[in-house]
Amino acid sequence: MNYQNRVKRVQKTLKRKGLDALLVTQPENRRYLSGFHDGDNGIGETSGILVIPVRGNVHLLTDFRYQLQAEQEVGWAKIGIYSRGILPHLKKLLPKLGIEKLGFESDYMLHSFAQKLKKTLAKAGVKTVATTQIVEKMRVIKDEDEINCLRQSVRLNEEVFAEIYNTLEPGMTEIELAIAIESLMRKKGAEKPSFATIIASAENSALPHAVPTAARIKKHRPLTIDMGLVLNGYCSDMTRTFVPGKVSRKYLKIHRIVREAQLAGTEAIRAGVTGSEVDAIARKIINNAGYGDYFGHGLGHGVGLAVHEEPRLSRLNNKKLKSGMIVTVEPGIYLPGWGGIRLENMVVVRENGCEVLNKDTTFLDI
Amino acid sequence: MNYQNRVKRVQKTLKRKGLDALLVTQPENRRYLSGFHDGDNGIGETSGILVIPVRGNVHLLTDFRYQLQAEQEVGWAKIGIYSRGILPHLKKLLPKLGIEKLGFESDYMLHSFAQKLKKTLAKAGVKTVATTQIVEKMRVIKDEDEINCLRQSVRLNEEVFAEIYNTLEPGMTEIELAIAIESLMRKKGAEKPSFATIIASAENSALPHAVPTAARIKKHRPLTIDMGLVLNGYCSDMTRTFVPGKVSRKYLKIHRIVREAQLAGTEAIRAGVTGSEVDAIARKIINNAGYGDYFGHGLGHGVGLAVHEEPRLSRLNNKKLKSGMIVTVEPGIYLPGWGGIRLENMVVVRENGCEVLNKDTTFLDI
Repeated sequence: MNYQNRVKRVQKTLKRKGLDALLVTQPENRRYLSGFHDGDNGIGETSGILVIPVRGNVHLLTDFRYQLQAEQEVGWAKIGIYSRGILPHLKKLLPKLGIEKLGFESDYMLHSFAQKLKKTLAKAGVKTVATTQIVEKMRVIKDEDEINCLRQSVRLNEEVFAEIYNTLEPGMTEIELAIAIESLMRKKGAEKPSFATIIASAENSALPHAVPTAARIKKHRPLTIDMGLVLNGYCSDMTRTFVPGKVSRKYLKIHRIVREAQLAGTEAIRAGVTGSEVDAIARKIINNAGYGDYFGHGLGHGVGLAVHEEPRLSRLNNKKLKSGMIVTVEPGIYLPGWGGIRLENMVVVRENGCEVLNKDTTFLDI
Repeated sequence: MNYQNRVKRVQKTLKRKGLDALLVTQPENRRYLSGFHDGDNGIGETSGILVIPVRGNVHLLTDFRYQLQAEQEVGWAKIGIYSRGILPHLKKLLPKLGIEKLGFESDYMLHSFAQKLKKTLAKAGVKTVATTQIVEKMRVIKDEDEINCLRQSVRLNEEVFAEIYNTLEPGMTEIELAIAIESLMRKKGAEKPSFATIIASAENSALPHAVPTAARIKKHRPLTIDMGLVLNGYCSDMTRTFVPGKVSRKYLKIHRIVREAQLAGTEAIRAGVTGSEVDAIARKIINNAGYGDYFGHGLGHGVGLAVHEEPRLSRLNNKKLKSGMIVTVEPGIYLPGWGGIRLENMVVVRENGCEVLNKDTTFLDI
């Protein structure tokens, strides 16, 4: 990845905004700009932050636990080790770098920390300025290196799915299946699941965000698996619904509607179309089939270093899609008491269409 | 758990502070006050928030995905479902409840969200006030119900450890062992690991916060396992270092120093002693043995609904311990190139001493 090129783009934005530096606290932004792996334990326990000055060297500030990793992964930047906390370190460092106006990431800083930052730095003559979306905006458009990472993430995820699908035994509980999937992900080299795996059998599949339960997987009933992993920082996200056992006529009917909606949505995606237009095209198929009330979420979302990011394919997004964006296409029909069917692929928006990253078609076109 | 009693204590604090309500966004605080399970996906994707008015009913606000869970778990509170986001919902609800001054948790709200909250609520005549530690301060002292939950969490964690210890095969990689442990935790009914399991073999064990690698576990070399799980919301945290194979004289010597430091620290713990005093007593043993430079972290930390919470056993904590606090006692000696040894138990502070929650003594007194 060309981190230094990305840094230069941030520096241009800083110049335009009249800021002397940006403090990068958001973990995916930090990785995007430096390659530094996430070791954070929630927002309260960071493994490091970046200082991007409007010109000159990037500084990665971390503590002794991550020193070795920082030197290995971000050797081209200046590494600073704080032992008494980030604030005293910044108070000393920033004036040395001639920084008087420091932007911080308002979307990833605790309110109390922002107050302390302001107070501490004021004593050193540094003013803090809330910023939003400086790096996030860049991340929305993926370059070919990133698309390749996402492709590999999708591929590994499908490998895990295939192995699980082929060895699935009804009688397992939803939790056991989730464990089997997440263990296999890590055995195959994923950093971690990109979100808590959703396993929903029979009537549980009527909940779009079902949490795996101790219920056993039922034969002849829908089974929804929504799974994703992180590989080289990049997330995959895929959903399959299928029936372990005999497919009922009702299942077949609804599955085909969902798949048709997915295909229509996919076909509509290209640069210049808005997120809401794509959503509407897929939704129309479900509406026309009489199930409009049972598709209660948007058609898709962006995926990259984060599993949920911009852009959204939903009624609320009237912005045009651009080439290099990556989105999920995941229509669903959820019938309380019976179950639900959701099918989800990831696609790359291109100038004249889109590229479906998923290759798996198991049970898709039944 | 007596949630309503806890709520009453919060209401007393609100009255004293002149606040009409507290907005609870911090997931462990939310669970502490309501029993509502964490379904959050990081700070950006909450599964719900509480509104605790200075008098009257608690409101739990969530979205349709968690409605059923909310009704089951927090049936005694008013459940509000937001479909267009939290802010518009609050703007309507708070004036209806007569709330004019709303406290929010400054330690668990994004700076940008706090700004939006302020702006949105100002239009409804509601003023926002940053608060800190209102609920955290209550959580530091555990009641007997909580101590029992922590005891069960420790017990299950030790069960997992024993099973792993008895079936451990050298030749496994660190990652494989971490997966085996975390899978077993979930199979045995844990909600999840309380932190990413640390497996560090041979020289890797010289890093206090080693991340499991693809390295195979080496015979006759130290192996550190630092593991914990969440059961009924409560965390366990335990470290064992042992040698799969033959114990060297050097290992034996260092292990015994660490264990002696642990025993001395444990013996010193009782209500009225400060965190720094306990740290100093354990540290002195390591210092006297000539390894003071190789014990670079504090002696321990509080554990409860969060795996790292107050109080700290460290040079920096000059506050007195109180009965009902739960802390880890985890001295370590880390020798670069050779390896490290850390031993960690959890104890309950009592009036005249402490109660060690761990029962496991495998390899402890060698």
